[in-house]
Amino acid sequence: MMRIIIAGFGTVGQGLAETLHKKSNLLSSGHDPVRIVAAFDSKSFAIDTDGLDPMGLVTRKANTGSVGTKKLIDGTDVLDSVEYDVLIEASPTNIETGGAGLRHIEHALSRGKDVITVNKGPLALKFKELSRLAEKNKSSILYEGTVGGAMPIINLCRENLQGERVRSIRGIFNGTCNFILSRMDNGSPFEQTLKEAQQLGYAETDPRYDIEGIDTACKVVILANSIFKRNVKFSDVSITGITSVSTEAIALANDHDMVIRLIGEVSDTVLDVSPRLIPKGHPLSVSGTLNTAQILTDLAGPITISGKGAGRIETASAILSDLMTLMGRRR
Amino acid sequence: MMRIIIAGFGTVGQGLAETLHKKSNLLSSGHDPVRIVAAFDSKSFAIDTDGLDPMGLVTRKANTGSVGTKKLIDGTDVLDSVEYDVLIEASPTNIETGGAGLRHIEHALSRGKDVITVNKGPLALKFKELSRLAEKNKSSILYEGTVGGAMPIINLCRENLQGERVRSIRGIFNGTCNFILSRMDNGSPFEQTLKEAQQLGYAETDPRYDIEGIDTACKVVILANSIFKRNVKFSDVSITGITSVSTEAIALANDHDMVIRLIGEVSDTVLDVSPRLIPKGHPLSVSGTLNTAQILTDLAGPITISGKGAGRIETASAILSDLMTLMGRRR
Repeated sequence: MMRIIIAGFGTVGQGLAETLHKKSNLLSSGHDPVRIVAAFDSKSFAIDTDGLDPMGLVTRKANTGSVGTKKLIDGTDVLDSVEYDVLIEASPTNIETGGAGLRHIEHALSRGKDVITVNKGPLALKFKELSRLAEKNKSSILYEGTVGGAMPIINLCRENLQGERVRSIRGIFNGTCNFILSRMDNGSPFEQTLKEAQQLGYAETDPRYDIEGIDTACKVVILANSIFKRNVKFSDVSITGITSVSTEAIALANDHDMVIRLIGEVSDTVLDVSPRLIPKGHPLSVSGTLNTAQILTDLAGPITISGKGAGRIETASAILSDLMTLMGRRR
Repeated sequence: MMRIIIAGFGTVGQGLAETLHKKSNLLSSGHDPVRIVAAFDSKSFAIDTDGLDPMGLVTRKANTGSVGTKKLIDGTDVLDSVEYDVLIEASPTNIETGGAGLRHIEHALSRGKDVITVNKGPLALKFKELSRLAEKNKSSILYEGTVGGAMPIINLCRENLQGERVRSIRGIFNGTCNFILSRMDNGSPFEQTLKEAQQLGYAETDPRYDIEGIDTACKVVILANSIFKRNVKFSDVSITGITSVSTEAIALANDHDMVIRLIGEVSDTVLDVSPRLIPKGHPLSVSGTLNTAQILTDLAGPITISGKGAGRIETASAILSDLMTLMGRRR
């Protein structure tokens, strides 16, 4: 049996619960059936060692705004009060301190529990420390969902390209910025497209995290530490967002058969987020909210992968992939 | 120790030897160092239980046209005369009978040896039989290199998307056809672009295997049997090649902002190779010799992967990936 705790029950937590329900055949058929023994959000928690019904949690959250009926003091209290195998960390990201998510992850890893996180903040701040903590306690920390949503870039590099030397990764890692820049290709000014993105739900009310390149930088840090085995932090990234990309610059690029895209680039020596000129027809010239990454390898050459960068079910799919990796390791 | 035999020492076999040399640190550092104990081509063989020098084999092949100094009667004699763990099958493809490659694979699997094949013929003809033979003898048959060269589509579906239901795969699986069709986008007639492809070494002197869709059909069969768990053969595929694609048809498509590409499509019910209209800007509208596949999944939505579909080092990279999978399983 694989006993999981879901920390954070916002969009992603709910999408995960729906996915666990939808895939219950797959997850209960093996010799390691998955059971949700606890779930909590910022205010409440629910515990049942016999297993919580995922759709029951989703319904209660929708009806009451809370995942549980009990009042939450601190998430780590929940982690202490029930036996479990895997913490799935989906609390809101905090890029300054790591927030509650960082404490949950440290608490779980230090007790030898496996962790799957879609919360980028803790990894962007403390990647090395968390990796060491996991190693010391013989536990695992997996984080496919932190970069590119449903686009399986981390596991692709780790598993399928394991014999390759990855020379560099360049990609579009923020669907909101890409949506805005794609719309600007048609002549719409920045402020107007940002409003449109907010109306469509692609951008937050406070869009700075996306448009100033912070979200992309977090992903670049995670790729640098995981794929390139570097030891870097969020503050090491050179970041330029898209707020100063003008309609004129885009028109000029268009005259030269180019588009402007916000590109995150990482290699052994590079750690950069900035708007770049990309030739039309190049794999990185894609439009819309897709995420795309071009992985340059020594043998296979360039491998390009793209997929939906966000969305509740898409992010849940990345968690599911990590969960199945853990199930495979226990076999 | 992982003792390998290389069957077939043409372009791919030589590329593999070079790659094993280049990656010797990676392959000798683990507790399972890789050693080539035999290699053979259609005329000759070489054996050394202490390990053959990969670059020595490449040099001899270049200088004498033969990989070994001993005369080959039958490849299975070599397989019988040395202890080994993995057969790497890279003989020329024969789509009518499976050729020598099929006999090598059957011989190895029936004796409990693992097989990595880049030879498509045996899988397009006898996928189910070979899978059963492997299962019965507790051996493995891996074949990443048979579909899309360096584009890791099979392992991507199997490992990274293991929690997903793959609904369909549509892709460009033949770089020669795609090169020809891309050139025709600019108004060049079919016969002229085919000659150009031959001069550039992208197309064989006898190009029928590529342009009549046979190569793409073999790949579609392998995907149907491996990813969709179907039980189909080459003869089950509905095939239309690109020989009757006219300059006029391409111009008409262009008027509607479309291109024509040779698409292989496979799902639980579809098994098709034919030229299709693809909107410009769609991930399957790529130009040049790249291979691209769009995998439609239930949770993650569409995942697109592209990479170099052919080339000696690129194909060797797929073999290396399979080899490392086997090494991982032995740990």
